[in-house]
Amino acid sequence: MTFTEILTDAANQIEGAQVVLLAGVDGLGVETVVKDGGEYDTEAVEVEIAGLVSNLSRTAQALSSGQVREFYVEAERQTFLVSLLDDNYFLAIILGSQANLGRARFEARRVSQKLRENL
Amino acid sequence: MTFTEILTDAANQIEGAQVVLLAGVDGLGVETVVKDGGEYDTEAVEVEIAGLVSNLSRTAQALSSGQVREFYVEAERQTFLVSLLDDNYFLAIILGSQANLGRARFEARRVSQKLRENL
Repeated sequence: MTFTEILTDAANQIEGAQVVLLAGVDGLGVETVVKDGGEYDTEAVEVEIAGLVSNLSRTAQALSSGQVREFYVEAERQTFLVSLLDDNYFLAIILGSQANLGRARFEARRVSQKLRENL
Repeated sequence: MTFTEILTDAANQIEGAQVVLLAGVDGLGVETVVKDGGEYDTEAVEVEIAGLVSNLSRTAQALSSGQVREFYVEAERQTFLVSLLDDNYFLAIILGSQANLGRARFEARRVSQKLRENL
């Protein structure tokens, strides 16, 4: 499966997913799938989430917590679920406010494993 | 109930909780409970997590996602669960790697409500 196929499959499997993307921790996107013709400044999303990955990793180091594996941020209108695939890449899923986080996390882990095998 | 009592109660209810703290988004701690005599630089924890709250809020604004309500970060050795109580204060729970996140989140929401009533 190509990255596009894997991400599209994830977007379809995860109820409430709006965007599914694979990007480098430097903010350069590899592949982004926007569901149902939503409008997204995907470059801004990649850069902003990469910034978070970097901030969170620095904090985890500062607190001797080890490497960050996964995080989510629930805001009023959207939830971000991010899974670090290795030192260089992450999978990010943007969910609408009504999404099922447990289900999304389950799928994110399944997809992360598939992506890791292809990186 | 005092803040100390509320946080101590939470620390006891949440399996795997190592630290439970109430702090301002400016990094000044209000009250911190460290469970089972663990050693923590609580000031560093308050400042670092406040930094994350600020970064995440800025990102959520940049992506038009609205106000951040809650986030968690899972790292190798610890998981951070943070609940924003209002514009000025947050509750943070540091969990060991074996903790039950769903249960912790349930308790965090219950405790957040209690704290809000006392702020």
